Amino acid sequence: MGRKALQRSNDMDLSLDASDLEDLIGYNLKRAYVIVQIDFRKALGQDGMSARVFSALSLCIRYPNITQSELARMMGIERSGLVAIVDELEAKKHLQRAPVPGDRRVQALVPTEAGRAAYDATLKAVRAHEDRLFEDMSAEEKETLLALLKKIRNREEDA
Amino acid sequence: MGRKALQRSNDMDLSLDASDLEDLIGYNLKRAYVIVQIDFRKALGQDGMSARVFSALSLCIRYPNITQSELARMMGIERSGLVAIVDELEAKKHLQRAPVPGDRRVQALVPTEAGRAAYDATLKAVRAHEDRLFEDMSAEEKETLLALLKKIRNREEDA
Repeated sequence: MGRKALQRSNDMDLSLDASDLEDLIGYNLKRAYVIVQIDFRKALGQDGMSARVFSALSLCIRYPNITQSELARMMGIERSGLVAIVDELEAKKHLQRAPVPGDRRVQALVPTEAGRAAYDATLKAVRAHEDRLFEDMSAEEKETLLALLKKIRNREEDA
Repeated sequence: MGRKALQRSNDMDLSLDASDLEDLIGYNLKRAYVIVQIDFRKALGQDGMSARVFSALSLCIRYPNITQSELARMMGIERSGLVAIVDELEAKKHLQRAPVPGDRRVQALVPTEAGRAAYDATLKAVRAHEDRLFEDMSAEEKETLLALLKKIRNREEDA
């Protein structure tokens, strides 16, 4: 992108093809994320899970009986933001709220059989979307990218 | 993160410390971006520019007389989403709308002197935020990360 727009405008300085933004990791992270996010939605379809709902269900399956507070913390979002996600998963019968023995104030999130089946199908579609979208990256490049992104994510402990 | 939450919950399976999400590039991109975005806001302060406004001003300075349509395309956002950003920059007297010779239907965006000064100060603060946030990454790691993110961004041409 950018280049196409530039070609249409005659009075622009084309001596450099990059702004200051191109050297910023934050800007490039955002732009790359937008590409992936748009392709995710396209791949999963209008009736497919959103990335947030998919992430929440994944963690509920990985950690059955997780509480909403724990799930919000794991996802790095506010507990208030999680409510709509859990409501959606419960409405679709992918999750149930269950009592927590010894603590009547909180409820645990338990995936249903239908939730597990929907998750398996969605995970397959998500992996196919990433395989296709990143087909021009080698396995080594993907591993390097994941390792560097996780290095940034180490800051999550501080946040 | 995650680990802290896990320690509080006794009935979780701790044999693996990762869900399926950890292998997905999209999920890691999002999580890393959130870390950077939160630190950006913290570094720039309540009255500082948002990342979007900063990006828009950067491109207006890099490409003076750019039109709103071109700017939206460059930023990868809808033209409608750009209006609020340009309005904010105009209200702060960082940008002016100017007539485009030969095309009375469109207006070009021209940075003011105050806009250039505000941009220079903000760019300095943004670079300091990235230097600090990524201080545990070597120059080579940062370059590798940027190159891999730009490889994903090549898809912008297709979108």
